[in-house]
Formats: sequence, C-alpha cells, structure tokens
Amino acid sequence: MEMTELRDELTETIKAHYDKRELKEIKTVFSELNPADIAEILEEFPDNQKLLFFRLLTKEDAADTFVELDPDTQEALIHGITDTELREVLDELYIDDAVDIIEEMPATLVKRILKNTDSETRKSINALLKYPDDSAGSLMTPEFVDLKKGMTVEDAFKRIRRTGVDKETIYTCYITDDSRHLIGVTTVKELLLHDYEDTIDEFMETNIIYVNTLDDQEIAAQQLSKYDFLALPVVDMEERLVGIITVDDAIDVIQEENTEDIQKMNAMLPTEKTYLKTSVFETWKSRFPWLLLLMVSATFTGSIITGFESKLAALTILTAFIPMLMDTGGNSGGQASVTIIRAMSLGEIAFRDYFRVVWKELRVGFVCGLSLAAVNFVKIWLVDRTLFKNDEITLIIDVAICLTLIVEIVFAKFIGCSLPILAKKIGFDPAVMSSPFITTIVDAVSLLVFFGISTAIIPQLH
Amino acid sequence: MEMTELRDELTETIKAHYDKRELKEIKTVFSELNPADIAEILEEFPDNQKLLFFRLLTKEDAADTFVELDPDTQEALIHGITDTELREVLDELYIDDAVDIIEEMPATLVKRILKNTDSETRKSINALLKYPDDSAGSLMTPEFVDLKKGMTVEDAFKRIRRTGVDKETIYTCYITDDSRHLIGVTTVKELLLHDYEDTIDEFMETNIIYVNTLDDQEIAAQQLSKYDFLALPVVDMEERLVGIITVDDAIDVIQEENTEDIQKMNAMLPTEKTYLKTSVFETWKSRFPWLLLLMVSATFTGSIITGFESKLAALTILTAFIPMLMDTGGNSGGQASVTIIRAMSLGEIAFRDYFRVVWKELRVGFVCGLSLAAVNFVKIWLVDRTLFKNDEITLIIDVAICLTLIVEIVFAKFIGCSLPILAKKIGFDPAVMSSPFITTIVDAVSLLVFFGISTAIIPQLH
Repeated sequence: MEMTELRDELTETIKAHYDKRELKEIKTVFSELNPADIAEILEEFPDNQKLLFFRLLTKEDAADTFVELDPDTQEALIHGITDTELREVLDELYIDDAVDIIEEMPATLVKRILKNTDSETRKSINALLKYPDDSAGSLMTPEFVDLKKGMTVEDAFKRIRRTGVDKETIYTCYITDDSRHLIGVTTVKELLLHDYEDTIDEFMETNIIYVNTLDDQEIAAQQLSKYDFLALPVVDMEERLVGIITVDDAIDVIQEENTEDIQKMNAMLPTEKTYLKTSVFETWKSRFPWLLLLMVSATFTGSIITGFESKLAALTILTAFIPMLMDTGGNSGGQASVTIIRAMSLGEIAFRDYFRVVWKELRVGFVCGLSLAAVNFVKIWLVDRTLFKNDEITLIIDVAICLTLIVEIVFAKFIGCSLPILAKKIGFDPAVMSSPFITTIVDAVSLLVFFGISTAIIPQLH
Repeated sequence: MEMTELRDELTETIKAHYDKRELKEIKTVFSELNPADIAEILEEFPDNQKLLFFRLLTKEDAADTFVELDPDTQEALIHGITDTELREVLDELYIDDAVDIIEEMPATLVKRILKNTDSETRKSINALLKYPDDSAGSLMTPEFVDLKKGMTVEDAFKRIRRTGVDKETIYTCYITDDSRHLIGVTTVKELLLHDYEDTIDEFMETNIIYVNTLDDQEIAAQQLSKYDFLALPVVDMEERLVGIITVDDAIDVIQEENTEDIQKMNAMLPTEKTYLKTSVFETWKSRFPWLLLLMVSATFTGSIITGFESKLAALTILTAFIPMLMDTGGNSGGQASVTIIRAMSLGEIAFRDYFRVVWKELRVGFVCGLSLAAVNFVKIWLVDRTLFKNDEITLIIDVAICLTLIVEIVFAKFIGCSLPILAKKIGFDPAVMSSPFITTIVDAVSLLVFFGISTAIIPQLH
C-alpha cells in the first residue's frame, strides 16, 4: 500500500506544480524517480499533459519510461512527438522492447516507427516480428555480448567495454564459432575472478542450456527460474545463436502465465490488458462463453432432478440437502483439480505420476468424505431433527445423506485429479479442466448418487 | 515434457551404470549436468544410493546440488555424511541458502550444522534466523559487494576481485558510509563502461530503492520485478544496509505466493511442500476446514429451499432450474472475485479504485445477465417447452427464470468484486474472498431472488 500512497502523493505534487506552471520543479521531481515510477505517475494525467511531462525527461529516462507505459499512452505520445524525438527514444530502446511496443501499435504508426530506426535495427525488429506470439523467439533480444574462442580475459573485457553499452545484459557472455554456433558460456563474474592473461576457453562452461526460437516462452521462463540464470541463450533451427532472454522478461512471462492460468481455472478466457484498461465489452467477451457453456450443462443437472421429481414429492425434505451435497462435491473436486493443475505448471508432476496422484486423491477423498460425513451425521441428527424438531428426518435418511457425501467426495477427487492430467496428455490446456467444469460433472454425479442411494435404502421411496 | 523425458533417460542410464558398479561413468554423467538437474535425478534413488552418488560430485557441484534437494533428502544426506564432508558443503553455501535449509531441519541437525560452520557464518545465520517467516530479512543474504565513497573504478574492481568469489551477486555494488548507511548503488556494467580513474561517486545512483528487513517478502519480490533489478538492498530499522535479495529468490517468492493465492482462491489452506511430498494427512488438513465451513453454510441455502417447499410442491418444474441458477450465479461471482484478487496482487488496483471497479462490474454483470437470459429464454421455450412438450412451462415462468438470471448475475458481480477489496481494506487476505465463499453467498441470494420473483409474478404461486 505504501507504494500506491507515495505515487498518489507525487501525483498531487506534480499537479500543484503544473497549476503554477512550474515546469522546472516537475523536471526535478522526475529526475529523482525511477522510470517505472515516472510511467505510473504519467498515466494519471490527460494526454496533452503526458506529452508535456514526457518532454521534460532526460533522453535516457524518456526511453526507459516509454517502455513502461500502457500501449494507449505510447500511441498517444508517438502521435504527439516529432520524428527527431521519436528517433531519440527508439535509439535508446532495446530491440525486444521495441518489438513489444510495435506489436501493440496500429499499422500506420508501425510504419512511422520503422522509418525512424536505422536499417540494422529495422532488420532485427522485422526478424523478431516474424516469430509466433508466445515463442522464445518473440521474447528474445539479439543484443548480447558475443566472444570468440581463444580470447583472453583482457580481450573479453575490451570487447565488453566497446560493445556493452547497447546490450541488455553484459553479465552472461556467449562464445560462438565462425558459423555462429554456441560453443561456450561464461559470466563477467568468472572473468573478474580470473587473470587477464587466461583464455576464456579454459574456464567457459561448455554444457550449455538453451532453448529454441520456436519453444514456448513459458519453457524459457521455467528454465531461467530453475537454473537461476540471468539470461538464457536462444538458438535457431540450425542451432545458431540468435538471441538471449533476460530474467526480467522471464518474470513478466511467469506473471502473465499465472494470470492466464488463474483466469482459465475460473471459467474465463484470458485477457491481455490490465483490469482497469479492459473495456466492459472485452470483459464480457472473456466471461460470457464459459458462463453460457456451464449454464447449458447445468440444465442437465436440472433434468436429473426433474426425472426424480415424483420421488422428491414423496419426501420433500430431501430437496433441502441438494445444495449442500452439490456444493461440497464441487468444492472437493475443485480443490483436487486446482492442486494438480498448479503442480503440473510448476513441473512437479507429469503423466507418468498419474497413478500415484490418483491413489493419493482417493485416500484424501476418503478421509475428507468420512470426516465431513461424521460432522454432518451428528449435525443432521442434533440440529435438524432434534433442535428444529423435523420428524421427517429418519436415521436412514441421515445415513443416505452421509453415504452420498463419502461417495461423491471420493468421486470428485478422482475426477478432479484425472481430468487435468488426461487433458494435458491429449494436448489440451489442463487449466481449463478446473473447478467450474468439474463442478458441473460432479453436480450431476452427486445427484445421481444421492437419488440412487436414497431409492435403495429409504423405505418411503420404495 | 522434453525436460522430464531427458531426466527419465538419464536416471535409467545411471541405474544401468549402478547395477554394473560403474561409478566412474556415473561421475562423468553428473559432471556434465547442471546441479538443478543432478538434484532432480538424485531424488529418484533410495537414500543409500543418493548418498553414494552425492559423494561422487565435485565439491562445488555437491553444494549447489544440495541446495536444490528436498528437505527430506537433505536431512538424510546430513545424517549420512561425515563432519568434514558437511563442513565442505557448508563452506560453499551462500548464507541465505544455509538459512533456508536450517529452517527445515530438526533441532539436533541444526546444532550439528551450526557446529560445522565458522563463527562468523554462524553469527550471520543466527541473525537471519531471527527474522519472521516471509519477511525480507528472512529472504536476504548478507553477502554483497560493498564499496566506499571516493573509490575509483580501479579500486572497485580490485575489491570485487578480492571479495567477489563468496558473494551471491557481484553485479550490483552498494556504496556505504562509515556507519553502514547506504549512500549509493552502482553496477559492474557502469563500472566497466567508465574509465579506471573515475571515482564511483561521479556516477553512482543515489536515489535508492530498498526494502526494510521486516517488510513482507512479497513486497521485495514485487519491487525487484517492477524495477527489473538483479538485487534489492535490505536495510534495518536504523537504515543500515544489512543484506540484499537476489532476483532468483524473488522468482521463487513470486511462484510461492502465486501457489498460495491459487490455493486460497479454491478453498484450501496453503501447504508448503510440493504435491507429491505432501502426505495424505497434510493434504486433508489443508482441504477439510474450508469444505466443512462451506458445507455448513450450504445448509442455509438448503433451509431456504425448505422454507419454500410448499410452493415448490405446487409447481415442481421450478426445482429443475435451481441447479442452473445456482451454478451460473456462483460462476459469475467467482469470475469477478478472481479477477479482482489477481489485479490486486499485481498491484493494478487498490481501495481508491473501488467505485470504478464496482461501476464496471455492474455493467459487465448486466451485459452478461442480459445475454445469458436471452439465450436461456429461447432455449426454455424451444427446447424445454416445445421440443420436450413440457406444458407446465408457461411464458411467465420463462420470464421469471430469465429475470432471476439478470438480477443474480449483477448481484454476483457486485459481491464478487466488493468482498476482496473490502477484505483487504480491513486487513484480511483478499484471496480468501474467492469463488467458493462467494458461491455460497450468491447461491442463497439467487434462491431468494428466484423465489421472490416467482411468487410475485407466477399466478399459480399466488
């Protein structure tokens, strides 16, 4: 909360300065802030003031701030600034950031942006734009430090000093041969801890972990996180080094993928923008399809009740327990499916673990079912029957309800853990096999179990 | 999937070598792997073989692998190795990793571990152990590069070369005054891009972003991610620099917090271990409390049905629509709450946005309600009444159901977005105000709305 408060305070300060036209003071405030904070503050102002304030920034801050702004603001600023100003910003950008920005812009602006980059940058940008969305290629930057075999530590430092200023990271260096194949990796830390005369071949790491341009960006992020790297090399189909993915981009991917999983787990289609920037219509588009599908499937549950209507009419008290049975089944299944989906996206379990998972969930389901049934049995007897003097409730009805609980929870856990694993096996996204979907199945089955057990053991229903 | 397959293959290779007692070959296989992979493979073997293989590793690999192992395995290995071996491993560990390991060990082992560290390390470990769980202090490491005001670039490099080998990161360097107050930050990149004679005061960053030892680790991780840092300084109550948090630890925190949020959102208490390592009893403990609470609250929904029983008996067809109405309300509310919880944990919205959020959700709810009601109206008329010739369904019943849908969805969206924001405002964890909890409220309200509207407009119920 502190961060938000600080931002609000700074926004107020700048508003006050602006009202008194104290641009110099505004400049001073910005000069003491990190570009990520400047961007947040700029977003609070109308477009014309954004442009005015943006022009107060130093060249370097301007570019770093620009990267952090929302696409709408970026678009507005590009419309407002001159070609010279645009070129200055673009010169300072890393190529992967430039690509991210371009991907969100309308075609006319893309043209103007590309026109204002030098031909080499333009070539790199165009190459990156060709990779599929969400691929390692679309996430990487071609700006890395490349060293050659046989270089000494001194040579290496010279090269880093000469070329490093434009590189997104200089701390991991890549050693390539003449055909640009990756033959080794080293770090500035290693270089610093060796003597100037040592050649890098002596200590470079040759067991190299890398991804392919067409690999999913999620795999790249997982690798970076697993191996605690600061950057991960990306190679093309011919195994030539074409770029690197840096850890800050990996964090963004992890957060995006988590958001996407959470949305899918809760019956929504993923949206890309932040909540407040997503329009009502876009929000509707992400929520309506699943609501519709689940609504239609819930009507099947309804028809199960209809099919049993005559018996329910004979013993209406049973209806009172339907919501509890349906909810508990749904919640139990949801717990299992969400746990499994999460464990799969963290790489903790795979298809080969299926039987271990099922065996565990069956036991957990049995214990959960048994304990809930016990509580419920006592509660129905003491509260519903004795306290509320509901004589319609007999011992056998109590037993039927509690038996249903046990059976449905075991079933819910089984379905809940199975569907995500099987979905992944046949190439679907496991996150979709989550609570709402499983709830619908478990609802129907719970009712069938309830009516089956009731019909079998309650004398009034014979 | 590729990664898992590779691991399985390597495990098989090592098993084959082990059966033929080819320890040298096993050593070669390990020497070509990253410690994170070695750890995964070791976990596949029984404890005695783990120990045997662990002893084949180089001193450095042994320590790096040890960090990556599960606490159970770490415990087993510590039991198996000699004090000398233990000391070798401990010498190589970063202090924050040592602390993480110690936190999971039983008291007797902690004693043995501390006995085998030098007195300075022991002091640092004991200091870190005192910070509360999940605080920045418990996550940080005291091993950072500290520079002094007035040093030249050359001095700085000398110091890094001399002390860097034991530091978790050398790339961000901290400039402190004599009382250990942080006065500046610089990076190895900056150092490399300046001349040897420049003093670091000229270019060090003096607007420093830092956290306090008692801040939540989540805040530290968010800051690292927001500012794209490789490390974040941590200061104590007297604003003295006491440690740093590195980006790899921040990623782990982000993943842990995401898992925790997902668990809470789906009616589970957070568990710390990975899925397969969590026992049946522990899993039960994390799932039972919420199931119980939700089961009990669902009985209230049941009693609403009971209260309406006589009227339902007069028009039993209404019962068939109860599951659909309850599910759709629950799903709608769940969508809203999950979206808001996620946006809050990403820092996109705060309490001050409450009215904007409500206004948006009310509109989304209305559009969702209207569109679902339209589909439902036609479906009930064409399928339920015309196709299945269910004459009990009249136009007014159809209208009652569709009106209920609109009202309940708008209500569900309102409750779904409000509860998490209000929960956070009064200091509760918003993630708990999620689907299952909201479903229970929305269920009850949906039924009341349904029965209310039905009673008001359906003539048979008058």
